[in-house]
Amino acid sequence: MEIKRSFASDNNAGVHPQVMKALQDCNVGHEIGYGDDPYTMRATERFKEHFGGQTGVYFVYGGTGANVTGLQVLLKPYQAVLCAETAHIYVDECGAPEKFTGCKLMPIKTKDGKLRVEQLEPFLSMLNFEHHVQPAVISITQPTEMGTVYTVEEIKAIARFAKANNMRLHMDGARLANAAACLDLPFKSFTVDAGVDVLSFGGTKNGLMFGEAVLIFNPLFQQDFKYIRKQGMQLHSKMRYIAAQFDAYLKDDLWLKNARQANRMAQMLAERIKEIPQITITQAVQTNGVFAVVPPQIIEPLKKEYFFYIWNAAAHEVRWMTSFDTTEQDIENFVNTLKRILKKYLT
Amino acid sequence: MEIKRSFASDNNAGVHPQVMKALQDCNVGHEIGYGDDPYTMRATERFKEHFGGQTGVYFVYGGTGANVTGLQVLLKPYQAVLCAETAHIYVDECGAPEKFTGCKLMPIKTKDGKLRVEQLEPFLSMLNFEHHVQPAVISITQPTEMGTVYTVEEIKAIARFAKANNMRLHMDGARLANAAACLDLPFKSFTVDAGVDVLSFGGTKNGLMFGEAVLIFNPLFQQDFKYIRKQGMQLHSKMRYIAAQFDAYLKDDLWLKNARQANRMAQMLAERIKEIPQITITQAVQTNGVFAVVPPQIIEPLKKEYFFYIWNAAAHEVRWMTSFDTTEQDIENFVNTLKRILKKYLT
Amino acid sequence: MEIKRSFASDNNAGVHPQVMKALQDCNVGHEIGYGDDPYTMRATERFKEHFGGQTGVYFVYGGTGANVTGLQVLLKPYQAVLCAETAHIYVDECGAPEKFTGCKLMPIKTKDGKLRVEQLEPFLSMLNFEHHVQPAVISITQPTEMGTVYTVEEIKAIARFAKANNMRLHMDGARLANAAACLDLPFKSFTVDAGVDVLSFGGTKNGLMFGEAVLIFNPLFQQDFKYIRKQGMQLHSKMRYIAAQFDAYLKDDLWLKNARQANRMAQMLAERIKEIPQITITQAVQTNGVFAVVPPQIIEPLKKEYFFYIWNAAAHEVRWMTSFDTTEQDIENFVNTLKRILKKYLT
Amino acid sequence: MEIKRSFASDNNAGVHPQVMKALQDCNVGHEIGYGDDPYTMRATERFKEHFGGQTGVYFVYGGTGANVTGLQVLLKPYQAVLCAETAHIYVDECGAPEKFTGCKLMPIKTKDGKLRVEQLEPFLSMLNFEHHVQPAVISITQPTEMGTVYTVEEIKAIARFAKANNMRLHMDGARLANAAACLDLPFKSFTVDAGVDVLSFGGTKNGLMFGEAVLIFNPLFQQDFKYIRKQGMQLHSKMRYIAAQFDAYLKDDLWLKNARQANRMAQMLAERIKEIPQITITQAVQTNGVFAVVPPQIIEPLKKEYFFYIWNAAAHEVRWMTSFDTTEQDIENFVNTLKRILKKYLT
Repeated sequence: MEIKRSFASDNNAGVHPQVMKALQDCNVGHEIGYGDDPYTMRATERFKEHFGGQTGVYFVYGGTGANVTGLQVLLKPYQAVLCAETAHIYVDECGAPEKFTGCKLMPIKTKDGKLRVEQLEPFLSMLNFEHHVQPAVISITQPTEMGTVYTVEEIKAIARFAKANNMRLHMDGARLANAAACLDLPFKSFTVDAGVDVLSFGGTKNGLMFGEAVLIFNPLFQQDFKYIRKQGMQLHSKMRYIAAQFDAYLKDDLWLKNARQANRMAQMLAERIKEIPQITITQAVQTNGVFAVVPPQIIEPLKKEYFFYIWNAAAHEVRWMTSFDTTEQDIENFVNTLKRILKKYLT
Repeated sequence: MEIKRSFASDNNAGVHPQVMKALQDCNVGHEIGYGDDPYTMRATERFKEHFGGQTGVYFVYGGTGANVTGLQVLLKPYQAVLCAETAHIYVDECGAPEKFTGCKLMPIKTKDGKLRVEQLEPFLSMLNFEHHVQPAVISITQPTEMGTVYTVEEIKAIARFAKANNMRLHMDGARLANAAACLDLPFKSFTVDAGVDVLSFGGTKNGLMFGEAVLIFNPLFQQDFKYIRKQGMQLHSKMRYIAAQFDAYLKDDLWLKNARQANRMAQMLAERIKEIPQITITQAVQTNGVFAVVPPQIIEPLKKEYFFYIWNAAAHEVRWMTSFDTTEQDIENFVNTLKRILKKYLT
Repeated sequence: MEIKRSFASDNNAGVHPQVMKALQDCNVGHEIGYGDDPYTMRATERFKEHFGGQTGVYFVYGGTGANVTGLQVLLKPYQAVLCAETAHIYVDECGAPEKFTGCKLMPIKTKDGKLRVEQLEPFLSMLNFEHHVQPAVISITQPTEMGTVYTVEEIKAIARFAKANNMRLHMDGARLANAAACLDLPFKSFTVDAGVDVLSFGGTKNGLMFGEAVLIFNPLFQQDFKYIRKQGMQLHSKMRYIAAQFDAYLKDDLWLKNARQANRMAQMLAERIKEIPQITITQAVQTNGVFAVVPPQIIEPLKKEYFFYIWNAAAHEVRWMTSFDTTEQDIENFVNTLKRILKKYLT
Repeated sequence: MEIKRSFASDNNAGVHPQVMKALQDCNVGHEIGYGDDPYTMRATERFKEHFGGQTGVYFVYGGTGANVTGLQVLLKPYQAVLCAETAHIYVDECGAPEKFTGCKLMPIKTKDGKLRVEQLEPFLSMLNFEHHVQPAVISITQPTEMGTVYTVEEIKAIARFAKANNMRLHMDGARLANAAACLDLPFKSFTVDAGVDVLSFGGTKNGLMFGEAVLIFNPLFQQDFKYIRKQGMQLHSKMRYIAAQFDAYLKDDLWLKNARQANRMAQMLAERIKEIPQITITQAVQTNGVFAVVPPQIIEPLKKEYFFYIWNAAAHEVRWMTSFDTTEQDIENFVNTLKRILKKYLT
């Protein structure tokens, strides 16, 4: 039987075979729980190879947990987080950041999911006035929730603004590998070297089963984190099963191969869609997502064949995601279906 | 090479081969995320077979997350939780319950980790007085953190007290299978049928890789829970990988076989230890833990060969746990080591 | 010596002599604390005369406390509050609502501080999706922070929307008397009768020393409130000293006389300012605030003579407030100063 | 008509005439809100005269607010507070400390409400283990809720223990004047000079209308506090009305005269009660409270004539408080009533 792959989300894909093998390989005998095991040590070393020897590496269960605990370590309760109004932390975490940190998130309207320094400047007027929350963290997503990618210089500009105003820079890197593949740069260059203080490093959307990593570059914040992770319900007892996955992921460039494949498939999908006049792509396709405005009549029929998410119902904007296991044939099949439905419902 | 198994914790063991096989078997193609997949449906059905068709079944990442979100759904912020002072929620969750729910946990001293109704009664004097938090949830652990087991009647007595006083009954079942094996009763008889409102159902300590289930028996509390799980950072995107494990675990009595083995090994360990006059077992060995007071001189030398936890430093009380993969030979080796060290350091 | 009255805020004014007298008059002997005293009973009755016999009346310390505890009683932690982006709860409470309730506040851009139903409708798309917070409370300010006033029909329209969507309506009435004076209507008509569930009823800005009231019209929410007030650090021990003030305030229409005077003075100020071509009033002057764009050069010199707040620094928009004790002579003096400074700095 | 004064609580008393006069005297013209006024400046200076020039002085609404915000400034969310199980913060604040700070309070059993260093030492075993909350603040009440008083040396011993273990010392001084009167020492000697970091300084129980002060001796914690006070719903707009009271209270030793009178009356009451064989005083009477075990039959009849609180229902222990306005005649009347009721109900 043919396997049909959806374009709903990269988290609909399964686990990459090399990751699955790593899980089996580490399933031998007893290991001390909570991270005091050789697998965790090895995976930690891998992260340090990529991000520098000073990096604090902390494994957690999931992306929301990574973001929320990573923000918590940077925040006092009267402080605030500046973020894009499309940010996952603002829109898609059911208020977990506010609930757990007690802090306000201040949304900023953007065209492409990317913050610019000139949008941050007006918030400086809030400083030192006790009636206002105090902006203290800027959170950016790389790549953004719209699939766009910050350049190194754009990140550095935000980091300089943060430093100049005694703020910290948080990065949600749920799909960081896809940004690295797009930029064709090492992780380090657009994270720690660009001024990021705390990074959520995701893997689940690129072939892992579960587990994310919080990387803390600023040593000031490292010593608190182990307590915050536990209090944030993110400390896994059988840690080796997260660590072994990341070891396989960071070894032999698996992360990069997977991300390149997903990005390439999104490019291909975008190119094929540009041939279809009734559909308009709304965002630059830089990583593995394609955002498009489609004729409203086709949404329901298409959804019956391929599950996907409506991004903006009022605008008939949808999101299609590719993943590490998307094939050229999958694109072909999807575009053919799309064309068939367009033909049926638009004429 | 010989594999050495520790007696530190049942979470030091690995993943049972049938569970690992289930993970591989479900790793095919794409599935919708967040639980809308056939594996989750099937595992949910398995739970309903065990606990009744009205049960709300919600998978989460870990035990602390299960407890905290399960308590949250029962609580308003000015209410309080009554629990044993040895309860995992009180001692071992780094304050996650207080942090997330905002509620006070009120510790009750016990001899064996089990609450009795007469210990709960004095808290009734707090009711209706606005200066005091309002006790609203009783949380018990089955089996307790000391390895002891509540009888059905003991649980029912607490449930009656709860109901009579408009309180709810929460059960931390991180090792529920071990209690069921000890009681030789179906899960249902000492949970939902005994009056439990919300249950944390654990599997990681009995052969799973990750994932726990929150079971909500009282339908009043079911509709809120999906939001609380997400806000509690416990919603896994690739849900099939939790569900498939529980399916394997609940099928063909794997849970029971594993628990029986662990319990039997603890019995055997206890019997062998009773032969050693310098060591005193401090708790009834009903499940898979052995608590014992040992001569202080042997603690460090023994720890060098077998990692384990000190339970009560002042009393030289230690905890030894068996697990589903503990063998008779493991017990033999451990007891021999123990005797060798005793001989060396006590004479 | 002449007393100079500022136009910075109505909270810069003192305590009305009749309120001060009430404080002295109740200062006799002992009274049971926390509200079980005849003064509290009497003031509660006064509120019921104005708002109906089913009203739950709860005195608190201040306006932020009133808003935050009033919201808390309506909210579960995964729910959200919809409010104007100029709302006091969003801008001027240092994040107390998020910190205390754990809930997200979702800001809505407005021209005049007033929410409209069509601005609320897009939030309905968030319902039932567990990744999003769930909008459950609409909070409006009457009069708004811009001094504008909702009509009865505008409030009813929002209340109908709320009810139809299972949401609750909260009203911040820090200056409610000024709205009543403007509308020339009894309190009841635009609060409980218009569908408001919980109201913060302020007095401090209209002649009281301290203390506000939370009025809970919906009996569903009354029984929890006493605990929330205490937990919210808003329960005064010597309650009679808040109650006696409100008794004096609600008796013999003191609230109305004070509000009318403040409103009338704002009208007079606005009329005089309209004579000045370099100054543009930006909001309808319906209560006791005048918002105006002024030449930037005059801000600092004017501030040296009269302290006031910049409302929008980028736009050179300032806020001038009148209060119950503002006199015609005060307006005269202020306008003369304004003209003198304009002449000096603009020519 | 004769005025009857209760022995329920010192907060049942009214406002001292000199304090009331200060409120009237400051009720002139306009003053900038939120503390930027000459009255607040003057009262702040008075506090610095008593506690030293480095003291951070912050006025808040009430005692619970003072305690909670004072604790918040010292705590990270995974940290814990060690306190007596009778502490006001543990028992009588409806969970406000846990709700607002997110931290656990760990209760310690005492005989007289006073903590001893040897009771704190066992908590050191929790340090550095991420599964446990981290004890970081010790909170003591001076005088305790049982009316007993720590000596300077006892406080210093706790402060040394705190410092040696990187913890902070918080003092709840709701009745600090009564302790100072008992010790016959200046405030400074048993607070800042003894090693206290943050102090709740109360006045309401000793003749004020409302308002408490948080004194922050450690400059590390001063800069955050203004935000915490606002976020904690404790910032009064018309600040002069708190400040003027404290100015009157600290001037001309009003605080001391009031406290001495209350203490002296408690001594007198205790002496008279010692004559009654059926009543047993349970705590040393060092300040203004008398704790006594009484025959259960008299509780209800006595309560009908004098409202008071049951301290420990099971033990028939009651609390009688004197206040600054208690007179010898009041004691006489109360003791006569007591004797009359004893005679009637015990024979």
